[in-house]
Amino acid sequence: MKIRLYGEKMIPESLISKTLVIPGKKVSLKDFGTGWYQYKELKDIEKGDLKKEAEEVLEESKNSLSSAQSLLWANDVYSVLIILQGIDTSGKDGTIRHVMSGVNPQGVEVSSFKLPVAEEIDHDYLWRCSRKLPPRGCIGVFNRSYYEDVVVVRVHPEILENLMHLPPVKKDEKFWNARYEDINAFEKYLVRNGTVILKFFLHISKGEQKKRLLSRLDNKEKYWKFSPSDLEERKYWEDYQAAYETAFEKTSTKWAPWYVIPADHKWVARTVIADLISTKIQSLNLHYPLVSDESMNEITRARKELNDEKN
Amino acid sequence: MKIRLYGEKMIPESLISKTLVIPGKKVSLKDFGTGWYQYKELKDIEKGDLKKEAEEVLEESKNSLSSAQSLLWANDVYSVLIILQGIDTSGKDGTIRHVMSGVNPQGVEVSSFKLPVAEEIDHDYLWRCSRKLPPRGCIGVFNRSYYEDVVVVRVHPEILENLMHLPPVKKDEKFWNARYEDINAFEKYLVRNGTVILKFFLHISKGEQKKRLLSRLDNKEKYWKFSPSDLEERKYWEDYQAAYETAFEKTSTKWAPWYVIPADHKWVARTVIADLISTKIQSLNLHYPLVSDESMNEITRARKELNDEKN
Repeated sequence: MKIRLYGEKMIPESLISKTLVIPGKKVSLKDFGTGWYQYKELKDIEKGDLKKEAEEVLEESKNSLSSAQSLLWANDVYSVLIILQGIDTSGKDGTIRHVMSGVNPQGVEVSSFKLPVAEEIDHDYLWRCSRKLPPRGCIGVFNRSYYEDVVVVRVHPEILENLMHLPPVKKDEKFWNARYEDINAFEKYLVRNGTVILKFFLHISKGEQKKRLLSRLDNKEKYWKFSPSDLEERKYWEDYQAAYETAFEKTSTKWAPWYVIPADHKWVARTVIADLISTKIQSLNLHYPLVSDESMNEITRARKELNDEKN
Repeated sequence: MKIRLYGEKMIPESLISKTLVIPGKKVSLKDFGTGWYQYKELKDIEKGDLKKEAEEVLEESKNSLSSAQSLLWANDVYSVLIILQGIDTSGKDGTIRHVMSGVNPQGVEVSSFKLPVAEEIDHDYLWRCSRKLPPRGCIGVFNRSYYEDVVVVRVHPEILENLMHLPPVKKDEKFWNARYEDINAFEKYLVRNGTVILKFFLHISKGEQKKRLLSRLDNKEKYWKFSPSDLEERKYWEDYQAAYETAFEKTSTKWAPWYVIPADHKWVARTVIADLISTKIQSLNLHYPLVSDESMNEITRARKELNDEKN
């Protein structure tokens, strides 16, 4: 944790750790704030000062993320999978753009999962995501993911009946629990085999969504972002919150934890996420691979050969 | 079970069911035969008669497999994954050719998994297999599979250290048990989502392998099949048998059972496998999708329109 304010004054690590969904604990999204104002540690700080400081911290985190990714690449053992979920307008695209923009694009792949196409529906729901898993040395960002299959599909179970071609089975509690179980097993397996998984939920308030939707309707340059289904889905606000709560409760695990990120202020969300990612990669304690004596001799020989070249 | 002999005389279903590895039971490959002669039910039958009858049954099974695949395709709910394992010369390629040759190639995809290439090594070991999973309506055949990662890799653990870029962890009993656990969870998830899984081990005797290897060395047209590593791996015969035994014991499950197929006689192996696959698909009790009244009206209208066409 690197957030510090006014030179010496530091925001305690506990503040960022408050975003963690503790495995096995009942989840109420109301307990997680959507702004920064819920943190009493910050209540005496002017918003302008806080924002400025946060932006500096974001820059620092981006730099350390960039170095961390170079180390990931050189080690070629771990990959990092970042899962971003959030309701419409919660700022997923902007977060990716801002947090990842400093990293060598060769080492990052962003995959967006929208409505599945025919080829994807003809496979199990993890299939399309599996194909996009980051290789060792790389960071993969999932903009939405297989969590849609326990959230939007849980809010609209008719999708299962009308769109997905599943074997006939009752879509009851047991059905959903099997999905959470399968997702946990899948992620545990990935972690065992070298994938570091971080899952972020961009948490905004209903009021903030209203503001952001209106700005899409009031701004010519944002018209393209508006879809009538945005308003339709907003009517299911409470259902979505409930579906997310259950998903977090069932799938925040020691090996692949969920973080509920306050996202009413984009600069808060971005700073916290960049910090969490770079802190996590640093915790792997990677080093550039050691060179053997033999290779060192080769390096010395090659240096000499080049220096000795005539022309 | 459809194998019948001499018109009325039937070979009991128990004979084929003897190939099943009962979930949770300790496995000794010695208890499974490699020929047909271990079945006392067959001991009074001439080999020539048995072979002729088996070939007829194979033809029947192939026909019913072909119809079964059409139904799979029309239903678009289930896929069938067939995993074929066996040591060198056990007849995997020939089995696929003979059993699958009657099925519409649009509905079958065979994937062979050899030494992983760089892109595959840079992912978890299930990744390359996941990509090749059969879509709904289709049969996928894995010629070797992720089971190599608990068999050849268990016989030669140095592969893990030298080739795979795994996070540092002791390669002890716990490590291998985690792999079996992950494989079981993966298969359970697939089955829940509509994949029918059948796993076949082509079981040959050490003497039969010797005969087959020699025939590669004695026959110009088979030279290309020989690799010096074949003899090298033969020296690990007992280790392979042990690794397979453990793998079967840990991963033969109710949802994805292993069958140990006697494979010293190719016609036996092929007949038994074709029968097991077609029986399994038939047990799904699929029917061509019912047509709604509305669609039926459309069909009647279209028939009329075409018949009424002037030219």
